[in-house]
Amino acid sequence: MFESAELGHRIDKASYAHEVETLRADLLDAQYDLLAAGVPVIILVNGIDGAGKSETVNLLNSWMDPRHIATHAFAESSDEERERPPMWRFWRALPAKGRIAIFFGNWYTAPIVGRVDGTVKSAELERRIEEIKRFERMLGDEGVLLLKFWFHLSWAAQEERLKKLGKDPKTRWRVTDTDRWRFRHYDRYRAVSERVLRETDSGHAPWSVIDGSDARYRALAVGRQLLAALRQRLARPAGTTRRVAGPRPAPALDGRDVINALDLSLALAKGRYDTELEKWQGRLNLLSRRAQFRRRSVVVVFEGNDAAGKGGAVRRITGALDARQYHVIPVAAPSDEELARPYLWRFWRQVPRQGRVAVFDRSWYGRVLVERVEGFCAEADWMRAYSEINEFEEQLDRHGAIVVKFWLAISADEQLRRFKEREQTRFKRFKIGAEDWRNRDKSDQYEAAVCDMVDRTSTAIAPWTLVEGNDKNYARVKILRTLCERLEAGLSAGRKPGAD
Amino acid sequence: MFESAELGHRIDKASYAHEVETLRADLLDAQYDLLAAGVPVIILVNGIDGAGKSETVNLLNSWMDPRHIATHAFAESSDEERERPPMWRFWRALPAKGRIAIFFGNWYTAPIVGRVDGTVKSAELERRIEEIKRFERMLGDEGVLLLKFWFHLSWAAQEERLKKLGKDPKTRWRVTDTDRWRFRHYDRYRAVSERVLRETDSGHAPWSVIDGSDARYRALAVGRQLLAALRQRLARPAGTTRRVAGPRPAPALDGRDVINALDLSLALAKGRYDTELEKWQGRLNLLSRRAQFRRRSVVVVFEGNDAAGKGGAVRRITGALDARQYHVIPVAAPSDEELARPYLWRFWRQVPRQGRVAVFDRSWYGRVLVERVEGFCAEADWMRAYSEINEFEEQLDRHGAIVVKFWLAISADEQLRRFKEREQTRFKRFKIGAEDWRNRDKSDQYEAAVCDMVDRTSTAIAPWTLVEGNDKNYARVKILRTLCERLEAGLSAGRKPGAD
Repeated sequence: MFESAELGHRIDKASYAHEVETLRADLLDAQYDLLAAGVPVIILVNGIDGAGKSETVNLLNSWMDPRHIATHAFAESSDEERERPPMWRFWRALPAKGRIAIFFGNWYTAPIVGRVDGTVKSAELERRIEEIKRFERMLGDEGVLLLKFWFHLSWAAQEERLKKLGKDPKTRWRVTDTDRWRFRHYDRYRAVSERVLRETDSGHAPWSVIDGSDARYRALAVGRQLLAALRQRLARPAGTTRRVAGPRPAPALDGRDVINALDLSLALAKGRYDTELEKWQGRLNLLSRRAQFRRRSVVVVFEGNDAAGKGGAVRRITGALDARQYHVIPVAAPSDEELARPYLWRFWRQVPRQGRVAVFDRSWYGRVLVERVEGFCAEADWMRAYSEINEFEEQLDRHGAIVVKFWLAISADEQLRRFKEREQTRFKRFKIGAEDWRNRDKSDQYEAAVCDMVDRTSTAIAPWTLVEGNDKNYARVKILRTLCERLEAGLSAGRKPGAD
Repeated sequence: MFESAELGHRIDKASYAHEVETLRADLLDAQYDLLAAGVPVIILVNGIDGAGKSETVNLLNSWMDPRHIATHAFAESSDEERERPPMWRFWRALPAKGRIAIFFGNWYTAPIVGRVDGTVKSAELERRIEEIKRFERMLGDEGVLLLKFWFHLSWAAQEERLKKLGKDPKTRWRVTDTDRWRFRHYDRYRAVSERVLRETDSGHAPWSVIDGSDARYRALAVGRQLLAALRQRLARPAGTTRRVAGPRPAPALDGRDVINALDLSLALAKGRYDTELEKWQGRLNLLSRRAQFRRRSVVVVFEGNDAAGKGGAVRRITGALDARQYHVIPVAAPSDEELARPYLWRFWRQVPRQGRVAVFDRSWYGRVLVERVEGFCAEADWMRAYSEINEFEEQLDRHGAIVVKFWLAISADEQLRRFKEREQTRFKRFKIGAEDWRNRDKSDQYEAAVCDMVDRTSTAIAPWTLVEGNDKNYARVKILRTLCERLEAGLSAGRKPGAD
């Protein structure tokens, strides 16, 4: 991967000056066109120390309009970042449509450095590479233009650079212990990087390896590639960006599915309900006060038919917790800031800190439910959402979050009864609108969507619990019991949180 | 202030049960009405330990719909918070329109506790109280409904409580060293709190002191007051919320003002410009690499006539800095998330961390410039903005930020020339639109607004620098030189950052 970049390319001063003038104007022009077209751009800057990374980033900022570029240097994590999965800090910084983000030190840094110093094992590196590939594919599918630059220096060029800096008392301070350590491990660093680059070099997000030994050469090389990529993207007709979806999941041949297999006659009498409710709320309260809880987090997801009793179930959970511990997130229409970024961004921003419970009243599953059925997103988009969601939940789990998901099901008759009741009760009237009645007409499509969702996203780490909701007492107790059992299992498992 | 709350009020079980049923339904009803009306609510919960603060917050969450309530417990600051002014964490958590935020541990906590343990001197407490009063007045003016509850326990009631807890081995652990320390300092705590409450009890944000000794009494007392406040607010006809503005600032009698007093013929020849530019950019670069810089931050504000050369000046500054250090914030129309919160929220969210430079291309001054002239906000709103802005900049300064503000002025003729040039240059066409031409017709009004702005917000800590902009060379060098001089003075002053 690095052969061509070790040849020692050079550009003379005159040719450079001549080309740069046009290049700058063209880049600026392309930047404004991208701004108008609303294309978000991420530029990754990685590579060997001293190969001109920061110089090039400064140059790009001076060539283009820095008002629409945000440069993020991800060094040491803040404590707010450490309390969330490692990718949280990158999600946080994703650019809005039309803006350029330069990520200096990014999702490639920790895996590569960790593998070089031995803290990341080979199998773990493999897992991280897979995670990165899925993340970058998602970015591409979401319309983000991703450019990956690797700045390279051969061993000989690096040796010469360090010698030169070390000789001059005025520059000697610039050679740090880290630099020396890395140079001693040059071969290993080169080998690990080579593997990572090779495995993450894809059609939609290829690497550009830049020979960093000559300042003029690397500047022109980066500038030209950037310009070419921006122009290529601008030339793409709008609407052709979506990939074609694969075949839709087929329903079962005998018509039996996870929803119609539910026994909706299950019920709990008032007396038993009161005892059970108190028992499980008490248990949940004790669990939430365990010492291990402070180093974990809980993500509870509620989805279900309209009027299935989500709000009431949420209140039975929060009623057992301290208000300082939980946060209920009602998911409605996205804000314009959310619409300007990849779909999952608005959920990533709600990922709870350690010791906290986030209860989502509707969630990221809207993508494969309402957005699928109502056609709010393309088929290819909701089809890919299953694996993106699984990936998201896996990252939460790996960082120590306990993910618990409930689908509340009620029969069509029971729903009708509740709709009518809502229309007649003053306090509940706000809960029912024309949209709810319309959704009822599409109940078959919704059922198919729910079955696909359960089949594709009920995983060992984040299983779906289907709740028979015709009887509210039964449903609430089942939810509380399930939550307690999941927490008990999770907290006793003694996983190291944040070990990822 | 606490006399009535030390009488030992009680409510019997039957009366409580009877009243609570209606109260809950009414509160829920009022909550949904507020949601529909888009009124943001902040509930502050303060007081003596053991007086039932957390119990009451949990109760409020169970009575109302927790999906539209966010409870924030502000304990230890995170490192991201410590790198910004103390109020940043509260700004961050301000509720959007229609939502309720409960702040547990809030802007009253640190000043009171600090005064009790002696780390905050009396004069410093006075300053903080003034800061709080201005902040709460701003919240009120922005349409936020602020409710302040103080939970009280008499010395005798507290003694009894601690004894009771201490006797039982099952509850003994609940009495911490902090509790014992606070109890020993009860009188001082009561006296300091009394002073703070007295001085911050205002017509628009009065304190409610609640006797915390009886659980039923305090629950009903809080519930009723909350309901009354919500209903009172709902009854207020829309549009009557704005206070009447005072008399407008009058222009000078002889027609001379800070803008027409500028000598716009000032210019710098190309040769001198190149030397000066290099000199000041070099000096700025050295300053940005000083060790003290890492513990400070810089906020640069650019305002000016249309086409006055803000973008070019910004690039001359960023060109001297490392891209990892700065962030340029182009200020355009607010997002819907920003519109749902007090005006300054969108600028508070951009306050830089230590060691960073934030360059605002247009800023919070839009309130007293374009919003004033175009009538985008009421006169009372831009009139109060001057002091809100001064307060904001004072908080930045007190935390160690160096605030540098530039007004770029050009003559009407020069502006016309540049507008025409922009229309004819391909790369610059995006910079000129119908709005720019319209603004020209209001140049007198804009000039009056600028003069008022300079008079009212040019302060010792954050002075305005008026820049004669007809000659770009002259303007850029003046800007760089001013910035360097402000940084030199600021960095040498040896202020303790974050001392507030």
